[in-house]
Amino acid sequence: MKRFNFILFDGFETLDAFGPAEVIGELQELYCLSYHSMNGGMVKSSQQIPVGTLPFAGIDPNGGVLLVPGGSGTRALVDDAGYLERLRALAEQAEYVLTVCTGSALLAKTNLLDGRKATTNKRAFGWASSNGKDVNWVKKARWVKDGKFYTASGVSAGIDMTLGFVSDMHGAEKAMAIAEGIEYVWNPDMGNDPFAVSG
Amino acid sequence: MKRFNFILFDGFETLDAFGPAEVIGELQELYCLSYHSMNGGMVKSSQQIPVGTLPFAGIDPNGGVLLVPGGSGTRALVDDAGYLERLRALAEQAEYVLTVCTGSALLAKTNLLDGRKATTNKRAFGWASSNGKDVNWVKKARWVKDGKFYTASGVSAGIDMTLGFVSDMHGAEKAMAIAEGIEYVWNPDMGNDPFAVSG
Repeated sequence: MKRFNFILFDGFETLDAFGPAEVIGELQELYCLSYHSMNGGMVKSSQQIPVGTLPFAGIDPNGGVLLVPGGSGTRALVDDAGYLERLRALAEQAEYVLTVCTGSALLAKTNLLDGRKATTNKRAFGWASSNGKDVNWVKKARWVKDGKFYTASGVSAGIDMTLGFVSDMHGAEKAMAIAEGIEYVWNPDMGNDPFAVSG
Repeated sequence: MKRFNFILFDGFETLDAFGPAEVIGELQELYCLSYHSMNGGMVKSSQQIPVGTLPFAGIDPNGGVLLVPGGSGTRALVDDAGYLERLRALAEQAEYVLTVCTGSALLAKTNLLDGRKATTNKRAFGWASSNGKDVNWVKKARWVKDGKFYTASGVSAGIDMTLGFVSDMHGAEKAMAIAEGIEYVWNPDMGNDPFAVSG
């Protein structure tokens, strides 16, 4: 069993985290899903969902997958040195790190994306990319993969990326079967970005 | 402000509830989102998300919108007479009732869908429709609207239906703007069901 740890915080964007949770939740014979915040306890999403979390300290330091959502809560966290230090340690030890939306801005602030390709929300592209001056930001991509890092564009793109992750790990047929099971029209082409802003 | 109440229970399907929450969360100037279970307290989705809920007793009996998700938890609840009685009362008093996936089976068991058109998950169609012998089940539909009842097909169809609900209430431009904001490729045609099972 591989651990799949979701990083939550006050003001996380609901679908950024729980779209991917729906997808990975179809593979609970392979992945153990858990939900964490820095100190544990209840956190509330931007859509007012109160979620019970375990502390970062409870995350197994040996491998596993980390998913970092975006949302309005990232605006404060990109300036929180203590938080970034903890996040960096978790991301370093993880086997794979996935971000959705402005979650990539948060990860970029740990400097782990320096010199790597990444993408982010297309409406917040300027702000998000300003948090990683040495990241090779990709303007037109549904999601981007560079080494162990997967970064998705805005909100719903996290579902496409997570299906892409499943496809990379377990084959395209498995990803397609999950998409059909949740009646989701999967966009399997990471370069096909209907929401890219021109220029 | 209109109340938008999500009905949760152990084994609810994450995206059934939280896809629509993401959409309605874009209209928090119009809707107050809250999350309820019969007795309140923590409930856990099928994807292991612990969610803090308020009791049914805390739901304002004057109008508002009710959303009922599906998930494995519905299998026990369709045989729970006490639960169905409470759900029926909530659905009767609501201005609109939306269901996703096998949430329509649960609602059908209250008899409020009798003589009405409704749809449900295409993989669980036989089981779901067996819970409402007098419902006019529609085999091919992304979602169905009949009076104050909106019923969606499986999981992701709840996002399309909720955008359809927004379109009906506040105009197609508003729905399209929300879809673009969350980078979601909206299927705005309730009859366009890529997951319908033939026969």
